Amino acid sequence: MPRFNPLVEELSTPPIPLVQGWGRAYDGSLGPLIDMSQAVPGYPAHPDLLAKLGEAAASLSYSGYGAIEGDDGLRGVYAAHVSDLYGASVNPGNIHITAGCNEAFICSVMAVAGAGDAILMTNPFYFNHETTLAMMGVRIALVDTDSAKGFLPDPKDVSAAITGDVRALALVTPNNPTGAIYPAELLMEIFEICRQKDIWLILDETYRDFLEGFKARPHLLFQEAGWENHLIGLYSFSKSFCIPGHRLGAIMAGERVVEQIAKIMDNIQICPPRPVQAAVAQTLESLADWREANRAEIGRRADALRQTMAGLPGWDVGAIGAYFAFIRHPFEGRTSIEVAEHMARRLGITCLPGNFFGNGLERYLRFAFANADSATISLLQGRLKAMVLD
Amino acid sequence: MPRFNPLVEELSTPPIPLVQGWGRAYDGSLGPLIDMSQAVPGYPAHPDLLAKLGEAAASLSYSGYGAIEGDDGLRGVYAAHVSDLYGASVNPGNIHITAGCNEAFICSVMAVAGAGDAILMTNPFYFNHETTLAMMGVRIALVDTDSAKGFLPDPKDVSAAITGDVRALALVTPNNPTGAIYPAELLMEIFEICRQKDIWLILDETYRDFLEGFKARPHLLFQEAGWENHLIGLYSFSKSFCIPGHRLGAIMAGERVVEQIAKIMDNIQICPPRPVQAAVAQTLESLADWREANRAEIGRRADALRQTMAGLPGWDVGAIGAYFAFIRHPFEGRTSIEVAEHMARRLGITCLPGNFFGNGLERYLRFAFANADSATISLLQGRLKAMVLD
Repeated sequence: MPRFNPLVEELSTPPIPLVQGWGRAYDGSLGPLIDMSQAVPGYPAHPDLLAKLGEAAASLSYSGYGAIEGDDGLRGVYAAHVSDLYGASVNPGNIHITAGCNEAFICSVMAVAGAGDAILMTNPFYFNHETTLAMMGVRIALVDTDSAKGFLPDPKDVSAAITGDVRALALVTPNNPTGAIYPAELLMEIFEICRQKDIWLILDETYRDFLEGFKARPHLLFQEAGWENHLIGLYSFSKSFCIPGHRLGAIMAGERVVEQIAKIMDNIQICPPRPVQAAVAQTLESLADWREANRAEIGRRADALRQTMAGLPGWDVGAIGAYFAFIRHPFEGRTSIEVAEHMARRLGITCLPGNFFGNGLERYLRFAFANADSATISLLQGRLKAMVLD
Repeated sequence: MPRFNPLVEELSTPPIPLVQGWGRAYDGSLGPLIDMSQAVPGYPAHPDLLAKLGEAAASLSYSGYGAIEGDDGLRGVYAAHVSDLYGASVNPGNIHITAGCNEAFICSVMAVAGAGDAILMTNPFYFNHETTLAMMGVRIALVDTDSAKGFLPDPKDVSAAITGDVRALALVTPNNPTGAIYPAELLMEIFEICRQKDIWLILDETYRDFLEGFKARPHLLFQEAGWENHLIGLYSFSKSFCIPGHRLGAIMAGERVVEQIAKIMDNIQICPPRPVQAAVAQTLESLADWREANRAEIGRRADALRQTMAGLPGWDVGAIGAYFAFIRHPFEGRTSIEVAEHMARRLGITCLPGNFFGNGLERYLRFAFANADSATISLLQGRLKAMVLD
């Protein structure tokens, strides 16, 4: 057999199926599995959206190819939505629709960097960002974040890490895996650094709609004159609308960036899936209250998790935010994989080992707490209290 | 503004929207536009499939994430289908579902080659294969094919072109753009060369279901012991089922290859869109007669095109096959873009310039004739007969 691409062969196998496999080995003796591995909202999509999805998928109107950048309908509605959200003037030409936010990330990175270039990320990072860059031959530079500072990067460290081959800084807020919410002022300070250094800021806001207690704008970057020259925003409809199986994400960027991304998307998949574009365009505004209610519900789940963890001596909430919590376990000297595998197989609790998200994170676990309702979250206490690692 | 990735910036803009733009400038004076640009079957998806698409998209069963490799249902049904088609023993584990065949191509290439490696293709080639490799920094090596030999490659030329850095040979049969159908014996001979040279053969059979008058198997490669070690097969459901807007393709490969591709697909889009997987799995067998009728219909369209072109002095059918014809125009000394642009703007006939598909092809145009019914095809004669280039 001829060799594989070594950059791909060296990638570890995708972590989510691995952890789900541990969960399947659980014997059920402590009650149903509590799945906090993959971020999957624990409530169903709205019936109105499902009805529109059904109509659109059954229609000849959406069975043919669409525009590479996405259908005009969704680009227009989404541009209006984000204009309102950020208090900015965003045009449909600033929107490129994708099949989920991972595709938005790889397209954005590919538009600005190739093999031999570098992208700067925080440590911890979202593991698919790391594997995406690794398989492209893009060097990964890291800025460490400190648990004592809520896993937020220090702008001085960011500035120092932007060396000559760094083409972009990729940030995730609300963060995956830590849940940390980047304050608007910090984002502005970091954006200014990117402008001064003349690199791109790629801002992944997949979990934006789950910002706990959010009332104000997430940040003011899109109000800045010339944002198009240094900022690329990423978003996912999958989580907010509970439809990850339909695959839908979006990029917000300057029209010149959108033009580059269209060339990449044409090569990857010609156009994003169309029926889901139509259905989301028709319900983006009408389901605003429903999304607001989900936001409040996830806030309650965060409270339930704080309360549960407070009753567990030795366990700490390192950070908690819009969807995830980064939890410090009490088992010094044991790896995060040992701890997570034991929790999955023996206690029926799946979560992701800190080790998957970067260096020096063996004491941490990512809980996708928003998957579970408050009653389920409260069950964690009983299962974890008696936990003994063999 | 920081620089873009030069490999992306240097790509020309996607050709299909460009040509469709010329078509929009046509004033309609000679009758409706005859669109033979993008391959889009000129008949609708079957009502049974549309109904299943609607049901699946409206169902909570498919709103969540699915397996990276595709849902078990479709992998199983498709494995049985291709086992029957090729007279081979193909397992569900040999199937990786993708969002269309372009994604199948980029994933397959990425699994075996990275920046600095080379992939061998024929000239002419499908332009998205060329731009995909170019943006990845993969060197493109070409084997010329000769119009006198029906645009089929000579195995001796293939063998000579496999230099040390060539990781795979990518072939398209039935061919895009020429329509040429590679005989089973030729494919076996070329496959043997790939095995001897220890490189991969990536075989794109997107237009397999439109093989004119097809009764026997397209080829016997999947019957060969150890095919998994050198062969990767690509397919698209989009064309055969008339649902390109839903994005669905498939890779058939060894399980070790599927494992590599899953790592890539996880980075690109976690999982393929799910409702369309369910709907196609439910109708793949029941719509076999409908697909057979479409195959016969496209054969009649090919006949209509042959007849039409025979009545046009100076115009020649360079090759014609399952979906496309590669047509030689009579305008010596004029570029294929000049000819195609004139035909679109003035005569209301969109087709693609030979120039988009490789070197030395200025005398050729690609007609996606299967888009148009026989009556429409017969209208070409009147419009082209009087054609005079300014």
